[in-house]
Amino acid sequence: MDRTDFERASGARVRELCRSGQWTERTFGMALGYYQANLAIVPAAYAFEFMLFCQRNPKPCPILDIMDPGDPVPRRAAPTGDVRTDAPRYCVYRDGKLVEEPSSITHLWRDDHVAFLLGCSFSFDATLSDAGIDLPHMGGNKGRLSAFISNIACQPAGRFNGPMVVNMRPIPRRLLVKVIAISERYPLAHGGPVHIGDPSQIGVDLRKPDWGIYTPLAPDVEPVFWACGVTPQVVAMQSRIPEMITHSAAHMFVTDLRVADPSPLTPLG
Amino acid sequence: MDRTDFERASGARVRELCRSGQWTERTFGMALGYYQANLAIVPAAYAFEFMLFCQRNPKPCPILDIMDPGDPVPRRAAPTGDVRTDAPRYCVYRDGKLVEEPSSITHLWRDDHVAFLLGCSFSFDATLSDAGIDLPHMGGNKGRLSAFISNIACQPAGRFNGPMVVNMRPIPRRLLVKVIAISERYPLAHGGPVHIGDPSQIGVDLRKPDWGIYTPLAPDVEPVFWACGVTPQVVAMQSRIPEMITHSAAHMFVTDLRVADPSPLTPLG
Repeated sequence: MDRTDFERASGARVRELCRSGQWTERTFGMALGYYQANLAIVPAAYAFEFMLFCQRNPKPCPILDIMDPGDPVPRRAAPTGDVRTDAPRYCVYRDGKLVEEPSSITHLWRDDHVAFLLGCSFSFDATLSDAGIDLPHMGGNKGRLSAFISNIACQPAGRFNGPMVVNMRPIPRRLLVKVIAISERYPLAHGGPVHIGDPSQIGVDLRKPDWGIYTPLAPDVEPVFWACGVTPQVVAMQSRIPEMITHSAAHMFVTDLRVADPSPLTPLG
Repeated sequence: MDRTDFERASGARVRELCRSGQWTERTFGMALGYYQANLAIVPAAYAFEFMLFCQRNPKPCPILDIMDPGDPVPRRAAPTGDVRTDAPRYCVYRDGKLVEEPSSITHLWRDDHVAFLLGCSFSFDATLSDAGIDLPHMGGNKGRLSAFISNIACQPAGRFNGPMVVNMRPIPRRLLVKVIAISERYPLAHGGPVHIGDPSQIGVDLRKPDWGIYTPLAPDVEPVFWACGVTPQVVAMQSRIPEMITHSAAHMFVTDLRVADPSPLTPLG
């Protein structure tokens, strides 16, 4: 089973593969045209503060859907989905420490859990490719997007406070304006970049990614950084939130929302 | 003192007029180019559910800023502002009933109050005018935008449940596409219309506005309906929320956020 078999699959099909245990790998390059989502689950007692954190930090945390307390079904983003089983892999954080990386969290689910789906920049990768911008991490099974804990401070909200995680795409200089213009159109997938060029200005050493692998840059290429939906995980760790359950980095929850839809969150729009 | 004196005033200047008691009237046509905002204040115990209601109903309730519990200062939308004094007039709802319409709410403010600022369609009126679309309610002191309780149901969230309030602008048929295209660009000001034409389809009788006054339509004109930020007030009434404090309809809180800014909520964007 190869990810390229599922490039044109629906979001529902990828969720089904994950739910049945047939897919436990990263989801980049799959179900192109559908919004992929970061997942964050917190106890209801923290839900307002976490939602406020997302609202104040729309670049790393663009909200696609939020479920009622105890409801694992994303009724707007994926009505046939279940956040407990439909991501390929999960991370369980307790008191700021990663304690478990299961492929299902059904055994951990409680009535006071509130689940958030936050947009992921994988969502606009296909649009960038279609516009003639080659992305080394797309296609096949080898490419990896590298991600870094930057020195950009998020806006705090209650107990939630910490640095922004960014990911990097290497972009030829002549395509910079085009890449910015396209990604700015997708605020629900992190929107435009947060930094271009010299990584040290945002506290990043390209040779030491916190996630993914180091790939040297060609000479005519600039490193372009987007806000990343792994940010809540770093914030949960640094703020020692008693409990947060998330997807594992790059192992996304794929929704039914379409990237081409001009206003995917507003059925009336 | 006439509102036309303040067409080109800053948001801060209009807030100052309201705070000092010099302006207690409606704010349409003032501080053009700045986002005007609906205000809703709920006790912290209801804050998550109300925020969820806004997230699920982005057309009537586009979130501009949310304050920490007890903080009356919109630190992102209007850092020199104070939600207790800077709207011209307020409505106080208790158990679903309007009990008071003061011009300041300093005497009512508590440490557990959470204030929300939600975008208002007055924000794009100047952009529509600049594009050659005459709006009868703009300029002078006589124009009034009429608003109606429609039969469009909002997506419920916890205790918050009720119909969408809409307002109506009469638009010449030849300008419909232009008006839709322009307003769609401003999702933080309610975005594109929710209905065009036959008012009865959304349960509206143009001759009986719930706010504003009836103005007959010219023959070449269609009624165009936008979601309205008075929606939370009707929802608070219908759901018998124990306490909600809001601005009085059309008496808006004017922010420092600029309509021309492509991403006013993201300083990094």
